[in-house]
Amino acid sequence: MLLLGVAYYPEHWPQERWETDARMMQEAGISVARLAEFAWSRMEPALGRPELDWLDRAMDLLYKRGIRTVLCTPTAAAPAWLVQAEPDVLLQDQKGHPVSFGGRRHYCFNSESYRRHSDRIVWAMLERFANDERVAAWQTDNEFGHRCYCPRCAEAFRSWLKHKYGTTEKLNSAWGTIFWSQEYSDFSQVPPPLLGTGGNNPGLHLDYLRFFSDSIVSFQKRQIDLIRSADPKVSITHNTMTMSIYDDMDLYDLCADLDFASWDNYPMWTKDAVAPRSNAMVADYARSLKGKGMWIMEQQSGAGGSRAFGRFPSPGEIRLWTYQAVGRGADTIVYFRWRTARFGAEQYWHGILDHSGLPNRRYEEVKHVGREFSVLRDPLDTTSLRNRVAFLNTYDSRWALSIQPGNAKLDYFGHFEKYFSPLYRRGIGADFVNHRTDLTAYPLVVAPTLHLVSDELAATLTEYVKHGGTLVTTYRSGVKTVDNQVTDRPLPGPLAGLFGCTVEEYQNLEQMPGVEVTLGDELGGGIALSSVFNDVLTLDTARALGHYAGSHYSARPAIAINSLGKGTAIYVGFESEQGFYDTFVPWVLSRAGLPLPDLLPDSVEHTVRQTDTHRVHFWLNYADTERTVDIGEGGTDLLGKAPARGPIVLEPLGVLIVRETT
Amino acid sequence: MLLLGVAYYPEHWPQERWETDARMMQEAGISVARLAEFAWSRMEPALGRPELDWLDRAMDLLYKRGIRTVLCTPTAAAPAWLVQAEPDVLLQDQKGHPVSFGGRRHYCFNSESYRRHSDRIVWAMLERFANDERVAAWQTDNEFGHRCYCPRCAEAFRSWLKHKYGTTEKLNSAWGTIFWSQEYSDFSQVPPPLLGTGGNNPGLHLDYLRFFSDSIVSFQKRQIDLIRSADPKVSITHNTMTMSIYDDMDLYDLCADLDFASWDNYPMWTKDAVAPRSNAMVADYARSLKGKGMWIMEQQSGAGGSRAFGRFPSPGEIRLWTYQAVGRGADTIVYFRWRTARFGAEQYWHGILDHSGLPNRRYEEVKHVGREFSVLRDPLDTTSLRNRVAFLNTYDSRWALSIQPGNAKLDYFGHFEKYFSPLYRRGIGADFVNHRTDLTAYPLVVAPTLHLVSDELAATLTEYVKHGGTLVTTYRSGVKTVDNQVTDRPLPGPLAGLFGCTVEEYQNLEQMPGVEVTLGDELGGGIALSSVFNDVLTLDTARALGHYAGSHYSARPAIAINSLGKGTAIYVGFESEQGFYDTFVPWVLSRAGLPLPDLLPDSVEHTVRQTDTHRVHFWLNYADTERTVDIGEGGTDLLGKAPARGPIVLEPLGVLIVRETT
Amino acid sequence: MLLLGVAYYPEHWPQERWETDARMMQEAGISVARLAEFAWSRMEPALGRPELDWLDRAMDLLYKRGIRTVLCTPTAAAPAWLVQAEPDVLLQDQKGHPVSFGGRRHYCFNSESYRRHSDRIVWAMLERFANDERVAAWQTDNEFGHRCYCPRCAEAFRSWLKHKYGTTEKLNSAWGTIFWSQEYSDFSQVPPPLLGTGGNNPGLHLDYLRFFSDSIVSFQKRQIDLIRSADPKVSITHNTMTMSIYDDMDLYDLCADLDFASWDNYPMWTKDAVAPRSNAMVADYARSLKGKGMWIMEQQSGAGGSRAFGRFPSPGEIRLWTYQAVGRGADTIVYFRWRTARFGAEQYWHGILDHSGLPNRRYEEVKHVGREFSVLRDPLDTTSLRNRVAFLNTYDSRWALSIQPGNAKLDYFGHFEKYFSPLYRRGIGADFVNHRTDLTAYPLVVAPTLHLVSDELAATLTEYVKHGGTLVTTYRSGVKTVDNQVTDRPLPGPLAGLFGCTVEEYQNLEQMPGVEVTLGDELGGGIALSSVFNDVLTLDTARALGHYAGSHYSARPAIAINSLGKGTAIYVGFESEQGFYDTFVPWVLSRAGLPLPDLLPDSVEHTVRQTDTHRVHFWLNYADTERTVDIGEGGTDLLGKAPARGPIVLEPLGVLIVRETT
Repeated sequence: MLLLGVAYYPEHWPQERWETDARMMQEAGISVARLAEFAWSRMEPALGRPELDWLDRAMDLLYKRGIRTVLCTPTAAAPAWLVQAEPDVLLQDQKGHPVSFGGRRHYCFNSESYRRHSDRIVWAMLERFANDERVAAWQTDNEFGHRCYCPRCAEAFRSWLKHKYGTTEKLNSAWGTIFWSQEYSDFSQVPPPLLGTGGNNPGLHLDYLRFFSDSIVSFQKRQIDLIRSADPKVSITHNTMTMSIYDDMDLYDLCADLDFASWDNYPMWTKDAVAPRSNAMVADYARSLKGKGMWIMEQQSGAGGSRAFGRFPSPGEIRLWTYQAVGRGADTIVYFRWRTARFGAEQYWHGILDHSGLPNRRYEEVKHVGREFSVLRDPLDTTSLRNRVAFLNTYDSRWALSIQPGNAKLDYFGHFEKYFSPLYRRGIGADFVNHRTDLTAYPLVVAPTLHLVSDELAATLTEYVKHGGTLVTTYRSGVKTVDNQVTDRPLPGPLAGLFGCTVEEYQNLEQMPGVEVTLGDELGGGIALSSVFNDVLTLDTARALGHYAGSHYSARPAIAINSLGKGTAIYVGFESEQGFYDTFVPWVLSRAGLPLPDLLPDSVEHTVRQTDTHRVHFWLNYADTERTVDIGEGGTDLLGKAPARGPIVLEPLGVLIVRETT
Repeated sequence: MLLLGVAYYPEHWPQERWETDARMMQEAGISVARLAEFAWSRMEPALGRPELDWLDRAMDLLYKRGIRTVLCTPTAAAPAWLVQAEPDVLLQDQKGHPVSFGGRRHYCFNSESYRRHSDRIVWAMLERFANDERVAAWQTDNEFGHRCYCPRCAEAFRSWLKHKYGTTEKLNSAWGTIFWSQEYSDFSQVPPPLLGTGGNNPGLHLDYLRFFSDSIVSFQKRQIDLIRSADPKVSITHNTMTMSIYDDMDLYDLCADLDFASWDNYPMWTKDAVAPRSNAMVADYARSLKGKGMWIMEQQSGAGGSRAFGRFPSPGEIRLWTYQAVGRGADTIVYFRWRTARFGAEQYWHGILDHSGLPNRRYEEVKHVGREFSVLRDPLDTTSLRNRVAFLNTYDSRWALSIQPGNAKLDYFGHFEKYFSPLYRRGIGADFVNHRTDLTAYPLVVAPTLHLVSDELAATLTEYVKHGGTLVTTYRSGVKTVDNQVTDRPLPGPLAGLFGCTVEEYQNLEQMPGVEVTLGDELGGGIALSSVFNDVLTLDTARALGHYAGSHYSARPAIAINSLGKGTAIYVGFESEQGFYDTFVPWVLSRAGLPLPDLLPDSVEHTVRQTDTHRVHFWLNYADTERTVDIGEGGTDLLGKAPARGPIVLEPLGVLIVRETT
Repeated sequence: MLLLGVAYYPEHWPQERWETDARMMQEAGISVARLAEFAWSRMEPALGRPELDWLDRAMDLLYKRGIRTVLCTPTAAAPAWLVQAEPDVLLQDQKGHPVSFGGRRHYCFNSESYRRHSDRIVWAMLERFANDERVAAWQTDNEFGHRCYCPRCAEAFRSWLKHKYGTTEKLNSAWGTIFWSQEYSDFSQVPPPLLGTGGNNPGLHLDYLRFFSDSIVSFQKRQIDLIRSADPKVSITHNTMTMSIYDDMDLYDLCADLDFASWDNYPMWTKDAVAPRSNAMVADYARSLKGKGMWIMEQQSGAGGSRAFGRFPSPGEIRLWTYQAVGRGADTIVYFRWRTARFGAEQYWHGILDHSGLPNRRYEEVKHVGREFSVLRDPLDTTSLRNRVAFLNTYDSRWALSIQPGNAKLDYFGHFEKYFSPLYRRGIGADFVNHRTDLTAYPLVVAPTLHLVSDELAATLTEYVKHGGTLVTTYRSGVKTVDNQVTDRPLPGPLAGLFGCTVEEYQNLEQMPGVEVTLGDELGGGIALSSVFNDVLTLDTARALGHYAGSHYSARPAIAINSLGKGTAIYVGFESEQGFYDTFVPWVLSRAGLPLPDLLPDSVEHTVRQTDTHRVHFWLNYADTERTVDIGEGGTDLLGKAPARGPIVLEPLGVLIVRETT
């Protein structure tokens, strides 16, 4: 259900103020408040002596105003008394140095001692607030995402390895430790991948990243199990950070244990023209983690920053970016934060209200959104996005590339975005799936640089294509085995049969100019300029769609297309400038039997949420000037409460939401 | 009294050479030599066994040549035997790592053990040299300015906090430690602000900077008290470094305990056209610390540097920069150093003589200055600068901005310099005052970004204006409380009444283009381009002098002027390019009833030292070509020993000093 | 004898593959394989339990294919069990932090414990492989070149100092420790030069670099002595890295203990037009270390890199760069590596074969070279380069400049290369000699920035000139004494008499524009633009060849030439752009009575290997287009097996090798 919320920290303000806050929230249409995040020291001022009355009072006061609470486990910031009593809960960085108390996220995920402290504070909260109608949901911790390299983690890593490999022989073989005489005769010899001399073993390094993802997931799982043991019906979520940046854990794994996914959405109001597109992709990724019911747990509402801070939104921008999130699947929007803190490291991370707490133009804009949400609530109920294009990504590929990109300019999700852009510019939706997703629903799957491929994944993709799917992958795919070794088969390794070609040689363009690629007639002829890598192809069952026109491999295939069963597999041996994808992607869409809508005007975004009986269209204008969109037969302009059809003018930073009956 | 001196290290040279050095100094007109700096290991080769005969001999030899000694306490470099015996006197950096022996300034200011060592060596020097007519003055240590983060400092910090706050409740409230659950239930939990995860609490951080300033001041105070106990009449000073860069301690506090202020003046001979202006401002700052009697304790005389080094002065430049210092209030000029060291980390920090010790062109130039000083001594006696413009700055504001500038491009003293420039270019002098200075003597006070303002300071400034003063401040003033929290009042917080306006919203221009500001007719109309920050003003009793002409706050006030009692308060909501200040500052000067001299020719500097009966004008030409200045009625050209009036040609790098009777 | 080899790691591959590898090697003309490098953990899986059967088997299998083994001591990578048992063998970095296990080169050279481990594994190998006809040679360790700063090294340093100085008084005097009170009353107080506060003492620092060079040399010497004790006849070498970059040890010292010098040659296939010239200089340097019989122990055969990697060679480039090495004196070329590793930190350091192990174009190119080598073997037998120009360099000067370059843009070997270039472009060979080399054979010696000069070296050079030699040196020569103090004599210190001039003043151009230098008629007039430093000269017995034409030292001498005995000494007071050297060096060559061949076409290299009776000319074309060279009378085109004379067209990346009878 479409709801508006705020991140609220009553403990930061005098109790006398709380009533004013609650009233102003209610007036703005707020019905959810996230509480207790980072409030451990106030909820448990001393070991084993919880004090939750203040929180209860705040929840009551809000509830009377129709505002339900999202309760957070406060484990992202261990209090001073805890750290003083048990200094070894502090994490150690990749140089092996322990961090000091004084910031946040300073704990070790693998400290059993810290996990017991976590149990105790969560249980204390549950004793008071389990099965409480005031509680809308729980949030675990806050923005999981750091790694620790302490001796305790090293020990846990070794247990994890022992469980995975059984014997050091198998581990040695998997990692190739004979290289540089790193063979382990006992698990106790295995170090974490500290910064040392000459680079870590890539097999060890990848396993550490996997192990650490598991450590975070299991840390959260313990909180979830505890909450469910006391309150089986309550919903549990976690506020993840921008998933194209944070790779400390596999978010598909993390979200598997949750009831719904949440995302902290900080577009930072950059004036970069591609910012909406990039943010759209991040939103699609977040939505795809659970498929539906996404929340924005922190939606930026002011200039962000700490030591220095960014720009403030122009009038209309809070609303505009709010509707981007809604249009891409968010149901509840929680603004961060209600009022800007007067103290602490984030006193310049601005919220809706300034430090003074007086109503301001940002508050008025939120209030306006609140009124609009009441109109939109019913039409959006039970709607969802129904996308037919999928982007396949895996953490194994991301992690392997982060350890050894080969070319330092290789940008994993930047590459995705080049394929995403022609879809975005036409209002075609896409989901971000991983290797465990059922691909049947997607006529087209794009998997750029599918770097690490298990035999199992290769089989899955082959079946997908055989049954009629269209699959696109690119340079440097199928390079790595599950052990992060390079395959001993001609590239793309286990995918060679699927794509009907092999890579005869590859050239790294990190410090070289690109090579021209002559595109075949099917692709409209013309020239693309390659970058990042050139995979020079030898065709087996495939045929060429383009050829290199330079270097010593001139006239050799650069793009291969292979028919397999009822489907098609396409291998693009290079990366290129955006222009290539603007031609290539529409051609692929057509080939996959998908419709090809017209290009939208510049700076305009279009998304659709739908049920079986109606569609709700979102048209957003990021430009500072007007744009005109042709909405065809149209329907009801939900915000203007009037019929709408044909060409419609969107105001600068304007939003049009149209309900269409199908 | 105008004197010439050198930093002399006889312990670096064979005793056979000393007589030659003394003779050459005498011939150059040197009458002061600074000795014993960094000479601890020679003065006390082993614990408790002082050997001062060599120093006595050197002092004697100099004294016979008419050269008196400035004696330094040698504590800036603890000797090897001391560090070996007590390794924990070594400081720890902000990562918590102890430094190694092998450089200098490696000690912890809060080590009681080190302070006792300091007592002993200073006392040993006093036993020999107290009440000694050969001694001109004492210098404490050398260029105070490092911070330590060791456990001992942490402990001292906690004592300092306990004394300041009494209870952890008060400390928690002052710092807002509830943010990120950093509440302290015991003072023993408070850490120093080490580099950690996510940024330190700004309240804690500011208190650490204040605490550390106090630590340095008290370290020096102990030396001063000891010296005065044995030699009550001798003068004591300290050689501070460029105060616009070094902020490790509050120099007003440090100098309060001294008899006169000294400054180490290293223009580095850069060819930057604004270098003279910047250096002038630093000189004015240094002079203002005590108001009179400033020494240059180290005046650069050769290329400076260690691993690499800078350029050598062109012929005439040593003299030119010497007269800049004199013209801005320096009475004694001590060149650094007599002869370039053949060894040690600073063997490329060149002095007057090269390594070979032979006379060279730099020596001849110093000799020339020596002759001139004998002519200038009487006319300059008892003269001082009498400035009517003050720049108000506080360490609390500097420190708060260094912790959280908000905009990384915010340059505290760079902003001052924009206001300083129109004064400099007209030969108008200015003093640099702090919040404790009596402002009565200054018709105009400029206080850029007065960021942290106590209620007391707000009251002082209000009284100043009510009694007829003109006060200018700018964007981001009055933001912080004394606890380094953001005020909960509309900005500029406690200054809102004084300036008759509030800040409705502020925009950070760190990553955005500036906005045009339309200046009112009073300011001559025209346009200024804003940068750094835009404070958008709401006027209460003030009226606007300029308005923004862009962004969503177009037509809103950007500059406000408020009449209060007999005075005027002006709030400039933005920073701009130099051109704005070149128009604005003259307008403000006139409004404050101050005279407005003509612009000087490019690269010419003009200062005046005066008594009630005469003025001595300094005209300096930094250009490589001639400049003509019109000195009007003129007076006596002291160096040319002839009358001078009307237009006078200044040679390239030339100096004109004219005595005018009033 | 001209041979082809590969670095081979059988332990990285299944035994089933070994036979295939051996056969493919044989087919490619390979007759040497380097084995056992980094294989400690496989050769001694547990303390004192060597397992060498596998190695024996591999050696046998290769030997049957005519391939002899270079055996490596595996000490560059201590195995995990060793580090676990004795963690203190790990080195500590310059911050005093121990490195973690997980890379390579992680050991401390001064660990007596590690040296005993080294003894044991080397002895175990000798017990099996001493006096074995399968063994072609031994290689010590791999690419020596790291420094350690651990307490053990500090202790060894102090012993080294005690031995060198005897008393702390002498040490204090040599280093000038009185500066900053660093006098040591006991050797136990002397620290290693850790990164600390304010820069280390340059005397201490230079001694540490000398000490560390000695530590590496003695570490190797212990292995050599052990090998020779068991196998007195076998040849021993070490694979040094690019000597213009790695300065951790004095390579002249390191190679003095070896039978022949080896070099790891990684041109990295950059497309930089000067790469061949720079690489040529490095090759000449490597050859000069022992004078003859140089091996390339690792010759790049694919893209190099680890986290990221570089470009692959174009067809023909492996061969081209191979012949550059041969043409400059290499007899055996060992390609790195046979097959690209599938695992470990260097899985992207590509060898001849790709990961798949299938024949590829690079393999075919090596095979082609193998066939050519069989033709070239006899003609090249006993040939050597006979150069008459020497470049004098010393590690003392390099190290002193690395500690204190004075100007951060001073590039020691970059400066050499400017003098080297006019020789290279004419096919004139040069050797790189040090202060112990007999210079009699060289009519011309060039010694750029001979910074640290002992009286002994000054005397040697004076004798050299008196007997007819021509010596060129440049700015900043003779500055430092052997103690790394600045001389107390006018510069160039002990060289002043030899060059007949002194430096009146020097100016550092790091942050200044250069000054024009007017060249005398002898140099053809014209103008050079100075950079880096200007030494302004005062002539004694010398006369000027050029004068500064700018700054305050305009018209002062910039180049001085001095006749002494039968010879000539020239001092060039500045660095300049390449154009100056292109004029100056030919003039100097003529003056030294040396022939002056014509300039070669762009991108063409020419070298000559000879005996008393014939010459073998190498003509190499680095361009992507054809070049024509005129080989005059010519001789036999060895690869084309035909007579050749007059103008000959070189293919793109082409090679011409001509045998000329004399």
